[in-house]
Amino acid sequence: MSDKDSKPLSGKQLARKPRGFPDKREGLLHAQARLVETITGVYRQWGFEHLETGAFEYVDALGKFLPDTDRPNEGVFALQDDDEQWIALRYDLTAPLARFVAEAGQDLGRPFRRYAAGPVWRNEKPGPGRFREFWQCDADTVGAPGFHADAEMIAMGAEALRAVGMKSGEFAIRVNTRRLLNGVLDAVGAENAETRLAILRALDKLDRLGAGGVADLLGEGRLDESGDYTKGAGLGPEEVKRVLAFAEAGAATREATLANLAKAAGDSEQGKAGIAELEAIAGALEGLGAPESDVLIDPSVVRGLEYYTGPVYEAELLREVSGEDGKTYRIGSIGGGGRYDDLVARFTGQSVPATGFSIGISRLAAALQIMGDTARLDGPVVVLNLDRDNPAIALSIAAELRKAGLRAEAYMGGANNMGKQMKYADRRNSPVAVMVGEDELAKGTVTIKDLEMGALKAKAIKSNEEYREARPGQMEVPRAEMVEAVRRIVEAQA
Amino acid sequence: MSDKDSKPLSGKQLARKPRGFPDKREGLLHAQARLVETITGVYRQWGFEHLETGAFEYVDALGKFLPDTDRPNEGVFALQDDDEQWIALRYDLTAPLARFVAEAGQDLGRPFRRYAAGPVWRNEKPGPGRFREFWQCDADTVGAPGFHADAEMIAMGAEALRAVGMKSGEFAIRVNTRRLLNGVLDAVGAENAETRLAILRALDKLDRLGAGGVADLLGEGRLDESGDYTKGAGLGPEEVKRVLAFAEAGAATREATLANLAKAAGDSEQGKAGIAELEAIAGALEGLGAPESDVLIDPSVVRGLEYYTGPVYEAELLREVSGEDGKTYRIGSIGGGGRYDDLVARFTGQSVPATGFSIGISRLAAALQIMGDTARLDGPVVVLNLDRDNPAIALSIAAELRKAGLRAEAYMGGANNMGKQMKYADRRNSPVAVMVGEDELAKGTVTIKDLEMGALKAKAIKSNEEYREARPGQMEVPRAEMVEAVRRIVEAQA
Repeated sequence: MSDKDSKPLSGKQLARKPRGFPDKREGLLHAQARLVETITGVYRQWGFEHLETGAFEYVDALGKFLPDTDRPNEGVFALQDDDEQWIALRYDLTAPLARFVAEAGQDLGRPFRRYAAGPVWRNEKPGPGRFREFWQCDADTVGAPGFHADAEMIAMGAEALRAVGMKSGEFAIRVNTRRLLNGVLDAVGAENAETRLAILRALDKLDRLGAGGVADLLGEGRLDESGDYTKGAGLGPEEVKRVLAFAEAGAATREATLANLAKAAGDSEQGKAGIAELEAIAGALEGLGAPESDVLIDPSVVRGLEYYTGPVYEAELLREVSGEDGKTYRIGSIGGGGRYDDLVARFTGQSVPATGFSIGISRLAAALQIMGDTARLDGPVVVLNLDRDNPAIALSIAAELRKAGLRAEAYMGGANNMGKQMKYADRRNSPVAVMVGEDELAKGTVTIKDLEMGALKAKAIKSNEEYREARPGQMEVPRAEMVEAVRRIVEAQA
Repeated sequence: MSDKDSKPLSGKQLARKPRGFPDKREGLLHAQARLVETITGVYRQWGFEHLETGAFEYVDALGKFLPDTDRPNEGVFALQDDDEQWIALRYDLTAPLARFVAEAGQDLGRPFRRYAAGPVWRNEKPGPGRFREFWQCDADTVGAPGFHADAEMIAMGAEALRAVGMKSGEFAIRVNTRRLLNGVLDAVGAENAETRLAILRALDKLDRLGAGGVADLLGEGRLDESGDYTKGAGLGPEEVKRVLAFAEAGAATREATLANLAKAAGDSEQGKAGIAELEAIAGALEGLGAPESDVLIDPSVVRGLEYYTGPVYEAELLREVSGEDGKTYRIGSIGGGGRYDDLVARFTGQSVPATGFSIGISRLAAALQIMGDTARLDGPVVVLNLDRDNPAIALSIAAELRKAGLRAEAYMGGANNMGKQMKYADRRNSPVAVMVGEDELAKGTVTIKDLEMGALKAKAIKSNEEYREARPGQMEVPRAEMVEAVRRIVEAQA
């Protein structure tokens, strides 16, 4: 089980985690949970039902659809099961859905509309903001031949992003179709699969590299700032121009973009079919009331995953976000999807029209965190444990506060000095500390400290003596009045 | 990547999933989500904060604490990362917490109280109700030396089970301590680790096998019904008797059990220390107001995981549950926990007192499902798509219903005949179907069908002709009154 070639680790060296699998603390988790709840709430309201598949699939059921072809293990975490068969962790939520639908067969009924939310795993090189485990939240309709089903996905994606707080102009869903791309590939005479893929990859970078960079990638190749050279698609100057004209056909409205495209796409059958798809989507988007600013038609959209067969959609944060650290971050893509009519056919032999949308929960949560939209959460009331011999006093006070609906805990460290216990309450962001010492026990009272007010008042105090005298934010109340006194302070702070 | 020795699969053969990784549908997921929400809600109210770690840990950080020592890969799903190091999916939520605490060091502050909920993976033989991926929901206090911290875990576990609907007598948390067990092991002269483990494993089966079966396992060995032979611990008759007397010291109240135990445990130092631990816990349980029926002291409790160092707790469903299928199921353990003072010390060298409680969400959800406590959920309003050329009509009606807060979808299959679309609405358990055909479009109306009432009335109808005449549950309303008419029906059904 352990690596025989390297020295075994011991002690502190062991306390490390594999790269790309972040630990998540309360603020981020709270943001993530809110996103999942809100987005699945939208999916559900649009009629989708909940389905979750397991983490593992057989490798041959997952297929080889990941865009990163440079890695020998194809970007998944795979291992051999007891029976020697290879299994792998899912890299998205779509491939397992296709397996589920194929396995369930006709009993499932069509259309089958499901949503899911959970982690996916990609065995890629981790980096800042690039994880190997991240959450997605998907909706899919299986058994939906009409392009209005794609329009529904797009409009619902936009509504989900609005539901989590995105405003007009802060995000856009860009829509394209593989058929239109194929039409252009045909029009510039790109015949072999490698050239076609190189052109699509170049287009995919329009947003990041601009027209100049993409022109290099369409032609001979491009040397980036870090000195890495990417071989180009090898198109001639005329073809490069033609592809760029197509890629830049985007206009302010869907109607205007479609008019530009009708000119740029030329006469190929694929091109015409692509325009017709986009027109059907645009019409259905009107019916669904999707605002122009939320959904754009953009012929440069590619989407990396190779299982898409028709319309593809990319959801992006448009503006850069300023971090609390003062830096500026460009989040870019936060989701997308497309039509994958052939994914179920891999199993059944029969083409099953399907379309889906996926939102990258981890990316979106990270964006919200950068924007400072993940407030520090309130901590519990802390009941200090001042009686080394009888912790039951503090325990029963905490139990009484909880019974009254308050969030409360008794201090669980050793029977430390009060200073250490107060420091703990501060670190937990507690609203109130409750103390019962010998005095209070004898008198039948408790001492309650408002930690927010205490901290404010303490700032104005100069000496330790004055502090002890003033006892900022502190009061003594009869035991019977404790719950109400604590509740008043907690509610005043909220 | 694929198994070179076997024939490659194709077509329908591919549509299969690895054993032990179940797909989950809406009813079960709904139950599971409710359990997680309720139980983490209790943990949170008791002052715990949310922390989630990643799915993978380094194998050497996870340690070898799984009880199943018969398997070469020690029960985990492990693989070699790019850098040749072995990583594995977590088998519980506790071992990663220990890594997290050790890695964070003193900055984290103590006590550190966290809750977590998520999947864990065990590479064990799957079977009915035995999965290789299942959910746990844990709370832990790290930096808690006092046994009242264990009492808190136990009382909170009981409260969490009550919060999800368990009543007095339906469940119990059984409490024991490793020290007491060690005292008995010492008292019967069990010195080597293998014998000690065999005795603990035998005790662990008291519940299932009764005193006779356990006596066999403590002595020579036992042949079970299926013909499998388990080698025994090899104790002599006197020792077997002594261990059984200890294991059966449980009485109606914690106080009575402690009195029995004080006699049975003998004079060993470990035995006395164990009694003292349980007395401290019993005292704190009083302070916390934990009912006698919820928490029992039971010297036969072992808990399989080997990292426990002191008190251990086992949560069980007491009664057998009757399935909707008429069969009787014994769920048994649904959670537990214990003190693991040495788990962090593996990393830091310093013992860090810690205790935790874990509830098996998947087991509990399965129990609720067997009991029929996972009702079928209501489906969405379905707007039929009757105009092949213009799906926008149905889309905009669905959008209008959603805007009014209703759950609604337009039919997304092909522009099928109405019968097929109505069948779809039935299968989705829809409350209402909405239809706009040519007639309705011309008149500015919609036809609304109450599917529940329709089904009831249809039962009384004899012929197709009569059916067409009566149109059970169906009415035509002006377009402007649609939303209110649909809402009335949905609310009446709810």
